[in-house]
Amino acid sequence: MKEYLLARQKMVDAALDHYLPKANAKPATIHKAMRYSLFAGGKRLRPILCLAAAECCGGDPAEALPLACAVECIHTYSLIHDDLPCMDNDDFRRGMPTSHKVFGEGIAVLAGDALLTFAFELAARVPGWPRYSPRDVIRELAVASGSRHLIAGQVIDLESEGKKVSLPRLKFIHESKTAALLRCSLRLGAMSANATPARLQRLSDFGLALGLAFQVIDDILDVTQTTEKLGKSAGKDAAAEKATYPSLVGLERSRRTARRLTEQARTALKPIGKPAADLLTLADHLLQRDF
Amino acid sequence: MKEYLLARQKMVDAALDHYLPKANAKPATIHKAMRYSLFAGGKRLRPILCLAAAECCGGDPAEALPLACAVECIHTYSLIHDDLPCMDNDDFRRGMPTSHKVFGEGIAVLAGDALLTFAFELAARVPGWPRYSPRDVIRELAVASGSRHLIAGQVIDLESEGKKVSLPRLKFIHESKTAALLRCSLRLGAMSANATPARLQRLSDFGLALGLAFQVIDDILDVTQTTEKLGKSAGKDAAAEKATYPSLVGLERSRRTARRLTEQARTALKPIGKPAADLLTLADHLLQRDF
Repeated sequence: MKEYLLARQKMVDAALDHYLPKANAKPATIHKAMRYSLFAGGKRLRPILCLAAAECCGGDPAEALPLACAVECIHTYSLIHDDLPCMDNDDFRRGMPTSHKVFGEGIAVLAGDALLTFAFELAARVPGWPRYSPRDVIRELAVASGSRHLIAGQVIDLESEGKKVSLPRLKFIHESKTAALLRCSLRLGAMSANATPARLQRLSDFGLALGLAFQVIDDILDVTQTTEKLGKSAGKDAAAEKATYPSLVGLERSRRTARRLTEQARTALKPIGKPAADLLTLADHLLQRDF
Repeated sequence: MKEYLLARQKMVDAALDHYLPKANAKPATIHKAMRYSLFAGGKRLRPILCLAAAECCGGDPAEALPLACAVECIHTYSLIHDDLPCMDNDDFRRGMPTSHKVFGEGIAVLAGDALLTFAFELAARVPGWPRYSPRDVIRELAVASGSRHLIAGQVIDLESEGKKVSLPRLKFIHESKTAALLRCSLRLGAMSANATPARLQRLSDFGLALGLAFQVIDDILDVTQTTEKLGKSAGKDAAAEKATYPSLVGLERSRRTARRLTEQARTALKPIGKPAADLLTLADHLLQRDF
């Protein structure tokens, strides 16, 4: 698995480097800032899932690359904006100073804007496939990233700070902030392989369960691990009085929820059989962190 | 002209209202914030130019509506982010409190993000035309809004505050911040009417000259008019030590430049003849402000 992940990360990194304006393209500041956050040690989870989904549906991962990179641009923009002082106010991300600490707040806002915009420039590269047109793909990306999903999660998160949050509300945050874009990554990969509607639906279900499980485990790790191991400030959620699974239902029930969601993810893939082997291994790898 | 403008504003407003998620769509805050800025009295200059370009090329303005609205969403997002404390720090826009004054900085950032994202959801509605596919149109929008144009202008603007700025640099700011999106509005309208490459080029040239003229006149008005008349803080540019045409070359030369650019815009349309009549009138209306 380690080799597979490394090879895929390299493939995604090379593609991002190829697609993105060079660091010295004018104005240099914005392109440096875009690249700084995009190449700040991200695990490329979303693009790797996108490529694996394409393969699971019999496609060539190379054809999914612009979409895989587009999703990573969206993910990175959302991190830059989430870290801003007016949002989560985080100085470190993956052990590195966040964009606004390096470039200042103004440029950080613009670097996020630029990556978001660039994601659609990338998505507009795809030729389309018999079942899915470029419009379908671009709409999919826009909806998952938009005010009812990715951005909705951040809004509710922001509005919930310091307040008592119900479990359904926390689920909505997780679904919007994390699961929607993970699911979108899988769907875009599947679309690029001209997947049947049935297989597209299975990968959707898989992505949703995987995303929710991933977020619950993240919440658990924030409580149980050290800053060093996380590469970001541990205990940050508690300090910000953010609702997390452990704070709402305790560690043990959180672990059970994570296991149940993991099982749901596996179940969604089962009927696909062998073509889903890589995705299954990926899910195991992602979810069997030390929680 | 007044009636024409009013009718077109109504058409654009109705379409925006129709396309945009309702103000009570969950999460309500973000949709209220999106609508607050989108319906804050904008003149709908860009969408109106887009519709007029479509007609100038023999198209039905109704077919250009999603693109006209997409451009207005991009324009509005850029205003919300430009007004943030970490950028131009403006409390008023068109005589109303800016988004971050009403909703707070975090939501203002997200409302901008959401409008930017929604623009591409809108653009993905177009069916495409024989000469121009949905991909062409979406790429056009992404490039004009991206890190080499609209965002580039804001970056250079931000980096130039309090510094001595050369005339070529100021032209670059104007071209990026204002002219690129104006030109894009015209191009998208023309594309929706399946314009010939030659006519598309003419409308491009017109858009560039019009955008530059418009910005020079804006600079002049910032010096010569009162806050009340402008609907935004007058003398703001000077106070922020921002480079403007008048501050670099004086009022008289600025006025001459504005007149020359206006003439260039008119010249670009001349070979089109009668179909360009509305665009010409629009240009006259926009540029014969009291400068």
